Amino acid sequence: MQTKRIKDLFRNGVIEENILIQGWVRTKRELKDFTFIEVNDGSSLKNLQVILDKTISNYEETLMLLNTGSSLEVSGILVTSPGKNQSLELKANTVKVYGNSNPETYPLQKKRHSFEFLRTIGHLRHRTNTLGAVIRIRNSCTMAIHNFFQEKGFLLINTPIITVNDCEGAGDLFKITNFDLCNIPKDKRGNVEYNQDFFGKPAYLTVSGQLEAEVMAMTFQNVYTFGPTFRAENSNTSRHLAEFWMVEPEMAFCDLEGNQDVAEEFLKYVFKNVLKNCPEDMEFFNKYIDKTVLETAEKIINKKFERITYTNAINLLENSNKQFNYKAEWGIDLQSEHERYLAEEVFKSPVIVTDYPATTKAFYMRLNDDRQTVAAMDILFPKIGEIIGGSQREERLNVLEERLEEQNIITEDLSWYLDLRRYGTVPHSGFGLGFERMVQFMTGIKNIREAIPFPRAPLSAGF
Amino acid sequence: MQTKRIKDLFRNGVIEENILIQGWVRTKRELKDFTFIEVNDGSSLKNLQVILDKTISNYEETLMLLNTGSSLEVSGILVTSPGKNQSLELKANTVKVYGNSNPETYPLQKKRHSFEFLRTIGHLRHRTNTLGAVIRIRNSCTMAIHNFFQEKGFLLINTPIITVNDCEGAGDLFKITNFDLCNIPKDKRGNVEYNQDFFGKPAYLTVSGQLEAEVMAMTFQNVYTFGPTFRAENSNTSRHLAEFWMVEPEMAFCDLEGNQDVAEEFLKYVFKNVLKNCPEDMEFFNKYIDKTVLETAEKIINKKFERITYTNAINLLENSNKQFNYKAEWGIDLQSEHERYLAEEVFKSPVIVTDYPATTKAFYMRLNDDRQTVAAMDILFPKIGEIIGGSQREERLNVLEERLEEQNIITEDLSWYLDLRRYGTVPHSGFGLGFERMVQFMTGIKNIREAIPFPRAPLSAGF
Repeated sequence: MQTKRIKDLFRNGVIEENILIQGWVRTKRELKDFTFIEVNDGSSLKNLQVILDKTISNYEETLMLLNTGSSLEVSGILVTSPGKNQSLELKANTVKVYGNSNPETYPLQKKRHSFEFLRTIGHLRHRTNTLGAVIRIRNSCTMAIHNFFQEKGFLLINTPIITVNDCEGAGDLFKITNFDLCNIPKDKRGNVEYNQDFFGKPAYLTVSGQLEAEVMAMTFQNVYTFGPTFRAENSNTSRHLAEFWMVEPEMAFCDLEGNQDVAEEFLKYVFKNVLKNCPEDMEFFNKYIDKTVLETAEKIINKKFERITYTNAINLLENSNKQFNYKAEWGIDLQSEHERYLAEEVFKSPVIVTDYPATTKAFYMRLNDDRQTVAAMDILFPKIGEIIGGSQREERLNVLEERLEEQNIITEDLSWYLDLRRYGTVPHSGFGLGFERMVQFMTGIKNIREAIPFPRAPLSAGF
Repeated sequence: MQTKRIKDLFRNGVIEENILIQGWVRTKRELKDFTFIEVNDGSSLKNLQVILDKTISNYEETLMLLNTGSSLEVSGILVTSPGKNQSLELKANTVKVYGNSNPETYPLQKKRHSFEFLRTIGHLRHRTNTLGAVIRIRNSCTMAIHNFFQEKGFLLINTPIITVNDCEGAGDLFKITNFDLCNIPKDKRGNVEYNQDFFGKPAYLTVSGQLEAEVMAMTFQNVYTFGPTFRAENSNTSRHLAEFWMVEPEMAFCDLEGNQDVAEEFLKYVFKNVLKNCPEDMEFFNKYIDKTVLETAEKIINKKFERITYTNAINLLENSNKQFNYKAEWGIDLQSEHERYLAEEVFKSPVIVTDYPATTKAFYMRLNDDRQTVAAMDILFPKIGEIIGGSQREERLNVLEERLEEQNIITEDLSWYLDLRRYGTVPHSGFGLGFERMVQFMTGIKNIREAIPFPRAPLSAGF
């Protein structure tokens, strides 16, 4: 008898004999002549109700072992439930208990636990409805991302995790070493003898795969990365992780407008597919976590994103009656309050802001003809702020060299990157999406640490 | 006019007017009245031949800029080539050159370059036929892996890269720190004050996601990881990388036999799909790199894998007439020569060896009833040796604790892992596949550093 998954049983909705399921007990309710067991197997939010009749063999002994968290295998007949919501239930013929779960010590009790508490039991927390649903959403989201790019002929590139570039320009770097930290080899002047370390020079965890993705776009036209990236920032907030996954497409022969088109289509595609593939989980989040997530998702899917230049956005902000904590004037970095005002109050839709002041942006962004702004873009979501950042890249060697000099970046280390402008350079563009931010926004969960299976943050790298 | 990809033009094989392509020059051949340009856009191994007639505007100036490596855009008419192999070619109406490539300095000349040399220009090497084909095979392989597991209802889990477990038991660990290596804080006794470091304790790059995958299998039944893993081993060989990607499925309610079934089906599926989706690239490897790769792939797809216990394998080896450098006797780790003899000479097919001596294997492998062997499995390929290693995991708390004690592993750090055996434990199994090894075997390339875009090895982490 092949094991069935509970998700498939509910989806098919067919009454069947000789069903075998395997899973874990969520709750047990004993009545006089029989017992109800809610079994979950991780395939769906929904439990399958199993009915143990007193007449089955070893009824009493089996019941003793069946507590919240116990593992079991049940064979029986799938019947229509006479209960109020007309679903299916399994009348057990035989039950085999694999593993008990002591109700005195099992940390997951029937009551609702705080997410903070659940983080302390990271190895068990995905047994709860909310965290379980996050894992299914992540999985669905990941496949939607791959399928979007694959359908368009993009190639996946695994960019390196360990890097000796310290100029990727996106934040503080973790150091990697094979030295004994008690005993770092130093020369007479007290400088670390990196030539003795594993890679022969200072090495770091990557903050972005963009530069390497550019290498590949100059050969394969359209590529994307999807891998872990790192920030050694001491940010103990609900929006920061020290380790998170990033999606970074890079497209040759693509300008800022094409970049915006792809990014918008991409976001619509991913939201649409997750809604389609995880409707129950999304409804759960809408019901229990944030009552606007379904509405927000529909808006992203159906509304054309507004597009506005930074300069026009500043004009709007300056001429609005709204009082901001941080005054909006040309040259500033847009603050969260400005971004949310634009998306929520002015446009009431996702909005793409382009052409930011050159001084606020990274060296690789393409200088516009006004020489004041660069071909950057940020996609802002209502209630959320920035979800995607991207740009057209500077493809002109001389301009890129000037920008590097302005920002005091040593071009020697980037000679390979400059070579891409020496040999067959083309206009090209790309963007980055923080994967956990997307999952966070999609589900409405408050803290990003719930959006990744094993969060890494300051003083926190357990399990 | 929308840009077409060269792969699609050849696949469709249809004559068309008003075609636009974008790509890079591979070669140029000037004749009296026209010039042939071979253009590649990364979508396929095959170049599209473009014919520039002397009559197009700016013929001379354009030609000057079109060297190997130059980037261009061509619009024209796709016609049947009168050449010997009856393919398609593009008669150019207009040509736009985006970026020149100085033939005096461009490192990729027409002659064949050694892979060693190409590694020194890692930012350009994928512009060659072989390395370009590797990227397409990697991409296809990745999607086949995802699709295999997704079709079976497995959930993808992103297990952590940064870990504070130093007992994953698979090799030397890279250290991660936020300390200034010049100035490591130490207490009076000279011990590193890890409580001042980012994570508050020693942190490492993961060597395996297995333990965390087990956490998830105890909730979702069937899961898999697909992410980067690391070894700080000073192994300068053609089979080792310091950073490589690993696939690790983990299945609840699954014993060693089920594990073998899934692993065999998995390998067949991936090889089959790559052959189907990248036939040209695979033929290229078969023609130029290793003349047996297609035959090997067919064998993996079509032959049932042999299965034999370690004990029976040792008997076979002891009773064979073959002279081994390392004597085969019960208790040894099988050497490469033994593995290859079994797969190539005895069975002439892939073979799965199971039930190895407990002393040679990791703590988490399930102890068999004989108490001498564990429920481990290795899949051996002809000419290759081990490609997959896996096991049924020890699900019994008391036996696991004994094994940890035997191997002097401090159980305190693994209390969360032991909890999985305390609360709803079930028989479960999994295996690991080194992704680059698979790509290496599939393509026949000699050195694994060609199987990953940006290889990391001792003294080598460039680009």
